[in-house]
Formats: sequence, C-alpha cells, structure tokens
Amino acid sequence: MNVLLVYAHPEPKSLNGALRDFAVKRLEDAGHTVQVSDLYAMQWKASLDAHDSLAKQPGERFDPALDSKHAFENGLQSKDIELEQEKLMWADAVSLQFPLWWFTMPAILKGWVERVYAYGFAYGVGEHSDARWGERYGEGKLAGKRAMLMVTTGGWESHYSPRGINGPMDDVLFPIQHGILYYPGFDVLPPFVIYQTSRIDETNYPEVRDALGQRLDDLWTTAPIPFRPQNSGAYTIPELTLRADIEPEKVGFGAHVE
Amino acid sequence: MNVLLVYAHPEPKSLNGALRDFAVKRLEDAGHTVQVSDLYAMQWKASLDAHDSLAKQPGERFDPALDSKHAFENGLQSKDIELEQEKLMWADAVSLQFPLWWFTMPAILKGWVERVYAYGFAYGVGEHSDARWGERYGEGKLAGKRAMLMVTTGGWESHYSPRGINGPMDDVLFPIQHGILYYPGFDVLPPFVIYQTSRIDETNYPEVRDALGQRLDDLWTTAPIPFRPQNSGAYTIPELTLRADIEPEKVGFGAHVE
Repeated sequence: MNVLLVYAHPEPKSLNGALRDFAVKRLEDAGHTVQVSDLYAMQWKASLDAHDSLAKQPGERFDPALDSKHAFENGLQSKDIELEQEKLMWADAVSLQFPLWWFTMPAILKGWVERVYAYGFAYGVGEHSDARWGERYGEGKLAGKRAMLMVTTGGWESHYSPRGINGPMDDVLFPIQHGILYYPGFDVLPPFVIYQTSRIDETNYPEVRDALGQRLDDLWTTAPIPFRPQNSGAYTIPELTLRADIEPEKVGFGAHVE
Repeated sequence: MNVLLVYAHPEPKSLNGALRDFAVKRLEDAGHTVQVSDLYAMQWKASLDAHDSLAKQPGERFDPALDSKHAFENGLQSKDIELEQEKLMWADAVSLQFPLWWFTMPAILKGWVERVYAYGFAYGVGEHSDARWGERYGEGKLAGKRAMLMVTTGGWESHYSPRGINGPMDDVLFPIQHGILYYPGFDVLPPFVIYQTSRIDETNYPEVRDALGQRLDDLWTTAPIPFRPQNSGAYTIPELTLRADIEPEKVGFGAHVE
C-alpha cells in the first residue's frame, strides 16, 4: 500500500523526528511504499495568498475560494500545491504527524491544509443546492483512503481527560479529524497520542515506539471513528443539523459520532 | 483605551477588510487609540523555527520551548516577535479578526500566536510544581486585558448550532478562546461571528456593520465568558481535572464555563 506521512516538526533530532524515522522504516519493512512531506525541510509556504494561483494579475481583487477554484480547474495552481495533491491521490493512507501547539496543529501544517485543500479538490466538490450539500463528511475525492493523526503534547493525559482543563483530546482534535480529514472523505482512525513528552527518555522510549509500531501494523484493520456521513439521511438539508429523532439528547461534537 | 487589532485576511477589498476599516474608525471616534497588526501586509513569518532566536547557532539542536525561553529571558528574540509582545502589553483590549478556515484561524495568525506567545511571556509563567501549575487560565502576563474574536464564515448559523454538522460555534472556538486567549490571562468576550458571508451585499452590509459597531461600543462593559480560573480551587493539581463535586454530570469544553 502507499502511505503519505505529512510531518511538521522543525527539529529532526527530536522525539517527533525519531518517531518519523521509525514509522517510515516500520511501514517499508512491512512492504508498503512511503512518501514523507517534511514541511520544515521543504520550507513549505505556510500562508495562503494570491501567489498560489499562476493566473493572478497584480492589483486584481483576490478571493481565496474563487481563485482557488479557478486555478484548480485550469491547471494554474502553484506547483508545490499540485505535487501535494498528487501525493494525496497516490496514497492509500495518510498520517499527519505534529506536536500539539496551542491545542491544534503547527501553523506550517495548517498552511499545508489551506493551500493543498483547493476548491474543487477538498471542498466545493459535488452538487451544492438546497437538496444536496456537496460531497463531504464521508464523501469526496479522498473517500476510500485512511487517515491517522500522530500527535505529541507536553501536557498530561489527565489534562485532556473528559473533565481535564484543556478539554478532552477527542474534542480538541475534532476540528482536525472531522473538519479536515473526514470532510474530504477520509476514514479517520483513532489518533496516536503521546502525552507528557518531557518524561520520555531512553528507558521508556522503546515502549512508546512499539505502541506506534503496533498502530502502524494495524493501519489497514483498525476500525475508523464512526463519524456520521452527511448524505446518509441523518442530517436535514440545507440546515445540516442532526435529525430531531436521532439521539435527541445529544449536542456538541460527540453527536456526530455514531 | 488602547486597542490592538490583529488582522488576518489576504485581501483588503474584502468583507473583512471593510469591517476592519470600520472597526478602527469606530474605536478612534470613541476616543480610543488603535494599532493594527495586518499580518498579510506585514508579510508575517508564519512558521516558528530556530531563526526566531538570535542566539541560535547553526547545527545546534533546536528546542521550540527551551530556545523560546532562552531568547525571551535574554533579549534575544527576533525583532518582529518583540514588537508584537510590546503591542500586547500596551493594549487594554485585543481583537483577533479572521475568516474561519477549516474550523480555526488562518495559518498566518496561528503562526503569530506560536511565535509571539513565547515561553515566559504567554506560557511557562509562574511556579510549576505539583502544588502550582503556573499562572495560566485566568492568570498570566495578559491578565486584566480584554479580548474578542471577530470571525467570518461561509457556513450557515444552523451548521454551527448545538446539533449542527460542523459542531457548535462555541466549541469550534473553544481552543482559541480558552486555549489561546484565556490561557495567558485575557478576559474573553463572546465572539462576534458573521455567518454565510456570501449573502452579504450592499443592502444588508449596514446591518452587519452596525452590529459590530455596537459590540465595539460595549467592549468595556460586555460580560466576559465565565471560564473557570485554574488556580481558584475548582481543579485538582497536578491532575488539572475539575473537582468531582463541581457539576459532576458535566464533561467536555462546556464544563470549563461556570
């Protein structure tokens, strides 16, 4: 199988760097083909702007969505964007690996999402009307592929527990897992999270590494998070709220998991 | 009063651009002093890396937290970072204005947070031990200042309602309002959110603009979101979970609002 690892840590000699190297080897040893987008090493351009379209004329009004649509449809996207889209189409599974900074992904990875997720590629796909609201949340160009987050954080697991002060990790990651990965069609596996990174030393590193190895071995068999597909009847359209008769007591992020 | 507006939209001739200009004028007309950090116009460096510290030697291992601490303590931060910290210290109120892209702030603004929020400035402040977990979530260097988000989104309000498919807006914004603004001490006002931006034209723009004007007029009197302070006894330390006797039925982001 083909695996794309999108990696966003500035220091190769870090815990994240070690885990990335381990992950690549583990996957290759199992017979898979791996590509790594090492965003810092690539000096990835983080800010979405008018230069992302080769068609943009100086002085013209820039519209982030419409200019993205025009560039995507007419082969006028910046080359770096096109290459990442090709990697996504090539991959059977994608992993985003990053340290949790201020409760979400680093800016450089957010900028990868914003620029690579073009209109017509990751959003604005399919019919948009009062009866259909596009192919998204379970459908889309990346449907049939698997995705998994690999996340490190300095905080303790209890800080991210159901009543932990930072909020439950599932909720902290929901905008990424549901809003960025499930949205264009990925089946999203439960995340691999390492807490309290400062406690990891040579003694307990093998344990962490082997836990990741197991998750990589199980990449094709682990059950995805059962997010509710948008177009399967669970949501009213165009309001896109969960139908009143489905678990009527549930609200919030958790309502979108079956 | 002094107001800092941190603005992150690439096109001045946009709805966001119009609202920014309106906000600056409204605040100045009321006698306040306004500074704008227009991140795209400033070509703000979005990616946190080793170059953010003037002390970094080539080839040395880069540690995002410890290098930030060293640079902050020794006056060795990159000049652009120092200037933004000075603006934050100058301000009585701060507004972050941005379009919601993939359910959070644009990468360029995330990179402003990562780089300006140095160790010793916005985190790692105060005693960290098993009895005290720093001055954060209600305490910190930015305590006593007010903050408010100004957010635009193409989605409908119903898509962000309690059972809306994108998740409730309060939860979508929690990692920013609680994790980025309340964390270093800000009192966080309810956000000003504009939904379904494509419906806004010359006819209904005045209504949107006046609603923002009212929020700006009320900047000093609006009640902040009652997030629970970390060090007021509501949380066990060092687990940092909400004490078992406080609203025991509550879990998730909402548990941290009184």
